Amino acid sequence: MQPWKKDRIEIGILGLGVVGSGTVDLLQKNCAEIEQKIGIPLHIKRIAVRDLEKPRAVKVDRALLTNNAYEVIDDPDIDIVCELIGGVDPAKEFVLRALHNGKQVVTANKEMIAKEGQPLMEAASHANLDFQFEGSVAGGIPIIQPMKNALAGNQIEEVMGIINGTTNYILTKMTREHADFDAVLAEAQAHGYAEVDPTNDIEGYDAQYKIAILSSIAFTSRINVNDVYVEGITHIAKADIAYAEELGYIIKLVGIGRRMEGNRVQVRVHPTLLPKSHPLASTHDVYNAVLVRGYSVGDVMFYGRGAGSGPTGSAVVGDIMDVCRNLRFGSTGRVSCTCFEHKTVVPMDDVCTRHYLRMDVQDKPGVLARIAYELGENAISIETVVQRATFGDQAEIVWITHEAPNANVRRAKERIAQLPVVISVANWLRVE
Amino acid sequence: MQPWKKDRIEIGILGLGVVGSGTVDLLQKNCAEIEQKIGIPLHIKRIAVRDLEKPRAVKVDRALLTNNAYEVIDDPDIDIVCELIGGVDPAKEFVLRALHNGKQVVTANKEMIAKEGQPLMEAASHANLDFQFEGSVAGGIPIIQPMKNALAGNQIEEVMGIINGTTNYILTKMTREHADFDAVLAEAQAHGYAEVDPTNDIEGYDAQYKIAILSSIAFTSRINVNDVYVEGITHIAKADIAYAEELGYIIKLVGIGRRMEGNRVQVRVHPTLLPKSHPLASTHDVYNAVLVRGYSVGDVMFYGRGAGSGPTGSAVVGDIMDVCRNLRFGSTGRVSCTCFEHKTVVPMDDVCTRHYLRMDVQDKPGVLARIAYELGENAISIETVVQRATFGDQAEIVWITHEAPNANVRRAKERIAQLPVVISVANWLRVE
Repeated sequence: MQPWKKDRIEIGILGLGVVGSGTVDLLQKNCAEIEQKIGIPLHIKRIAVRDLEKPRAVKVDRALLTNNAYEVIDDPDIDIVCELIGGVDPAKEFVLRALHNGKQVVTANKEMIAKEGQPLMEAASHANLDFQFEGSVAGGIPIIQPMKNALAGNQIEEVMGIINGTTNYILTKMTREHADFDAVLAEAQAHGYAEVDPTNDIEGYDAQYKIAILSSIAFTSRINVNDVYVEGITHIAKADIAYAEELGYIIKLVGIGRRMEGNRVQVRVHPTLLPKSHPLASTHDVYNAVLVRGYSVGDVMFYGRGAGSGPTGSAVVGDIMDVCRNLRFGSTGRVSCTCFEHKTVVPMDDVCTRHYLRMDVQDKPGVLARIAYELGENAISIETVVQRATFGDQAEIVWITHEAPNANVRRAKERIAQLPVVISVANWLRVE
Repeated sequence: MQPWKKDRIEIGILGLGVVGSGTVDLLQKNCAEIEQKIGIPLHIKRIAVRDLEKPRAVKVDRALLTNNAYEVIDDPDIDIVCELIGGVDPAKEFVLRALHNGKQVVTANKEMIAKEGQPLMEAASHANLDFQFEGSVAGGIPIIQPMKNALAGNQIEEVMGIINGTTNYILTKMTREHADFDAVLAEAQAHGYAEVDPTNDIEGYDAQYKIAILSSIAFTSRINVNDVYVEGITHIAKADIAYAEELGYIIKLVGIGRRMEGNRVQVRVHPTLLPKSHPLASTHDVYNAVLVRGYSVGDVMFYGRGAGSGPTGSAVVGDIMDVCRNLRFGSTGRVSCTCFEHKTVVPMDDVCTRHYLRMDVQDKPGVLARIAYELGENAISIETVVQRATFGDQAEIVWITHEAPNANVRRAKERIAQLPVVISVANWLRVE
């Protein structure tokens, strides 16, 4: 590519919701410093929105707005298209067309990257275009750029994160207030920390997209999001949180990617008992944190606000500035997709973890031994067990096991649930 | 610049000590992945060492070694020079000459950057060369690249860090074991966590260099290292740590850079009482952490190993890869020095902080009131006071004040020390 000839760089934006407003606000507020850093003026030329009349969180000239996305994507003057509408459809078509039109693209769209990243990255690579998505994971926390640059020399052994603010807020409140899931969810919705339809967050899908993205970068292999085991937090009871606390743990929704022998990786999202001394364990409320374990660097952790207008806008603007530098120096496409290997995601059944099991049982002699026998039959050895009378002639038993394959625990759990002395296996969680 | 024509990139290294060994080890161990990521083979052509016969932590071909640094710096084949010898002299001359020879430079030398960064960065900028120094602050933790890239859109309000591993190790051990400074220092030296001459660490100079570097980037203004107030940890007694603990604080050596009104900044390093809930407060042992507060992003924190062969080697290799990408794309110099403003560092006397004062006094009526009177006379208002009888007719009084200029506390402290009822003002620390 040739060095830059135009006297400024023109930006087009798709979407002026939470992330779009944060992006525009930062570009406006810190304009002078941003332009000095990148060495060239920036100009927002056009912003496509669905509803021209909707009140906006930032002040923008009404003439900049259009309700026709193609007036952004197809505008020959626009150099960088920022896709900030979210979701796969129509975002993917917009981005593909922008790339075909030779635009650099910045996005914060985790779902699109996780599900449809491959054709988009290939289109960008073939045309030597930048395609940046720092804002798609962990909001304003720099994590994708550091993994692709400062940490890039390391073979990454593990990436592990609390990467969904809504569920972390809910679990934090459940922990602090000994409250039930449903009550806290309702309150989170009232405060705007959870969506009206919270499925995407509470069922873990949002975290699933993000750990698929992080693992793809960490293990230089595209992780198919459908291969990522996902389990949400709707089945967490306050009893689980209380037992975890008593045993020295805190329950968090954790995304985990781990390099295994033989070109295999684990990639999974589920509620996890973390020891209270774990670096991620003090990440509370809507905060996110990502821990990366590399060959040379050891453990590094990145912590901050994982969502919201300002933080995600910060990530988008950082990407825009990176692209601007590449435009000026004729070096777009200099850090492109690095998924040049093929690694297999281990099925959850074959993943070895420690386990937490909570059971309601009849409170009579021999019950504990009967259950322990079933665990032993499935090669599951026990680390800790707590039995407590609950009401009537019932008791609750909580087990923490040593490492065992998930398949073994699934089998044991089915057997145990059928025992006449067992009322129910109330919960099964993993322990790190 | 033209796109890259050579079939590989040649690296020359100055120094094969702790950081040099970590760098070479990582380049060897993860060679295939590194080369795939940057899209071109890398080759270590020459390594300059002081002593050719010294045993090394990595296996290198004896023929690569030279004891003449100019065989690296002046070799026309070498594209990137990594300066890993440390200190200002002769490192600065080597780097200047390498830049004059048109080499890209990577360094992990905090002292050189903090004291002599300006002429080096200017030489690099004028020649459109890369001059990278991620490893100079906080070892393997990505902090300089993220501040220059992913966070670059934000006006940074504050940067605050535990950026010296040795002092953090000492303070952590003093806290955990209720031990005295001298005993812990001796133990740290025995374990290799502190140098034989520990001055640079325990007097805070190492942290002073690093906070000067971080603040220069954060506030887009070159911070003269001599303007940075520095106070080490040698005067911390186990009594201070115990009182801090009792009052809900932990004592850490903290570097702080803070944007003020009117083009002014605070930049300082001193032992600091941090509330136990502060994000930096759980950074223990040799770990480092840096908290950055930006306009949009809010608080983000970076945590990991702040020194050592592997971590610092990781940072150096990350920089090398960044330079390699720039060489391939003809875009060296794309992120150059961003100190385009001039900000004044506020003298410590004018800095307002909260304060901790510990005094030995005579245990008789009216003493506390007499001291409180002197504080009041200097416009220092009191938040907490603890008085405790010690031995004989003596007592110890610990004060935590509200915010007051350091000059006022200095004046009050002088007055109080002269009071007949006061035996000594045993310590004065800042509280965040």
